[in-house]
Amino acid sequence: MSLVVVGSMAFDAIETPFGKTDKIIGGAATYIAWCASNFTQPVKQISVVGGDFPQAELDALTARGVALEGVQIKKDEKSFFWSGKYHMDMNTRDTLVTELNVLGTFDPKVPDSYQDCEFLMLGNLAPAVQLSVIDQLKNKPKLIVMDTMNFWMEVALDDLKAVIAKVDVLLVNDSEARELSGEFSLVRAAQKIMTMGPKYLIIKKGEHGALLFHENSVFFAPALPLEEVFDPTGAGDTFAGGFIGHLARTKDISFKNMKTAIIVGSAMASFCVEKFGTERLREISKADIDARLNEFVQLVNFDIDLV
Amino acid sequence: MSLVVVGSMAFDAIETPFGKTDKIIGGAATYIAWCASNFTQPVKQISVVGGDFPQAELDALTARGVALEGVQIKKDEKSFFWSGKYHMDMNTRDTLVTELNVLGTFDPKVPDSYQDCEFLMLGNLAPAVQLSVIDQLKNKPKLIVMDTMNFWMEVALDDLKAVIAKVDVLLVNDSEARELSGEFSLVRAAQKIMTMGPKYLIIKKGEHGALLFHENSVFFAPALPLEEVFDPTGAGDTFAGGFIGHLARTKDISFKNMKTAIIVGSAMASFCVEKFGTERLREISKADIDARLNEFVQLVNFDIDLV
Repeated sequence: MSLVVVGSMAFDAIETPFGKTDKIIGGAATYIAWCASNFTQPVKQISVVGGDFPQAELDALTARGVALEGVQIKKDEKSFFWSGKYHMDMNTRDTLVTELNVLGTFDPKVPDSYQDCEFLMLGNLAPAVQLSVIDQLKNKPKLIVMDTMNFWMEVALDDLKAVIAKVDVLLVNDSEARELSGEFSLVRAAQKIMTMGPKYLIIKKGEHGALLFHENSVFFAPALPLEEVFDPTGAGDTFAGGFIGHLARTKDISFKNMKTAIIVGSAMASFCVEKFGTERLREISKADIDARLNEFVQLVNFDIDLV
Repeated sequence: MSLVVVGSMAFDAIETPFGKTDKIIGGAATYIAWCASNFTQPVKQISVVGGDFPQAELDALTARGVALEGVQIKKDEKSFFWSGKYHMDMNTRDTLVTELNVLGTFDPKVPDSYQDCEFLMLGNLAPAVQLSVIDQLKNKPKLIVMDTMNFWMEVALDDLKAVIAKVDVLLVNDSEARELSGEFSLVRAAQKIMTMGPKYLIIKKGEHGALLFHENSVFFAPALPLEEVFDPTGAGDTFAGGFIGHLARTKDISFKNMKTAIIVGSAMASFCVEKFGTERLREISKADIDARLNEFVQLVNFDIDLV
């Protein structure tokens, strides 16, 4: 039984108030794989890249326990490329370039060796691609987690709703939750979105943490207050990778364990933003992760004796 | 030994997307007293009101264990009046009217019976008034907590810095922390502000919770996700009242107990915003408070087994 991840593997060029990169490795599935492979292996990847995608990058993922049988390599085409510039507050950014390239015609194929999928992570991608992966699986996974973004609400809302209806956990940010539900209050937005299909909803609030909703319960995970957010690219994907990675490792999909999984996701995201791209995720050890998780315990742990 | 509170007692007229009030009772010290009196009595109040301030309101505070010997009543003058209108997001507001009235010439007098002050809460008010109260106390209190706002940074920065240098705990919101420190990162802002005097800094982030800084430690308390914020007026004062109320009740000023005190403050603030003005604070029972504190435990409580 395994974790299957679908999403982009790509090039990014990033500009932040702290610096600027040339083309570096990015993509939702890349971040998810680098993160989740700390917790569970193999991570069975579904994606598409062009002939320009470095073999060394694929080898590094293989060495990390990421299965690439589901990654199509289109030798004569180019990989997806995104370029963006962050504003001073790091919460907003301008997209400078989007070149879909191989992603524009991506038709995902689920290899037979992925049919043991127990945990399915649908990284942010066209909803039709996400749906195709769900439909190709012969057995329903134990848990399907879906990430998405406002762009798909604007250009593919019907497709998006069709996927949302089939997933267990949906991940969106606060403004996306408001857009999808038409409700300003996040509590009301969550109630409405959970009637669309998902039993669990995670609303990410960036530096303000994340909320997990389920039935009438709510759990809050803070973001670690950082001196400096160097590059927020991939933080949401890394959060998703930590969340599903913890669940796949423990094979426990109770609400209680999802709380822990969100803390793990938050801790991993706090590493991601410390350097450009996936750089920090490649460096960290299990000891680093444990130390960071302990920081989260310290951050929110309190004793109370009622009045 | 006792809790002494200084701050305004006033009239407010409030407009929110949910409704509008005529003149109702407000003022920082009013909110603090209604809140803190749940945890400790007497609350020894220092303030000033005009002849228009209802005797019934003073009687209600007396019945609640609030000592009013330090509240000056200027029979021929009018009480401080503020009117404001909140925007849809409830985080921003326009001030429509500010009539200082009795507050413009307020010269606080600390009664002899307040000289047993152990906990001093300086509610948001002109820094010169806050300083005068500190200077009139013959013995240094065990803990001085100060609330302030951006207005004083703009019109009385030197006075403000003189008070900040003398307090143990400073309360500001995120934009005020940035303004006071000149640092965008809240972690850096906190480090800088703590060099100005306070050993503890609380940064309030409204619906995004609050951070407590002390030396190299940080604690985060979430705000309770609410379906509806009806009226945010007084939420910060109520937070301060819950914080100092818990500390005064337990007489424990350790960092560990301050964490709990921030949760108590957050819980009390979550009641405050449910109705206009002080209305909800007057209704709630100890059982309501305990139930709300339990909600906070559920909101942030998680188990972790390290990787």
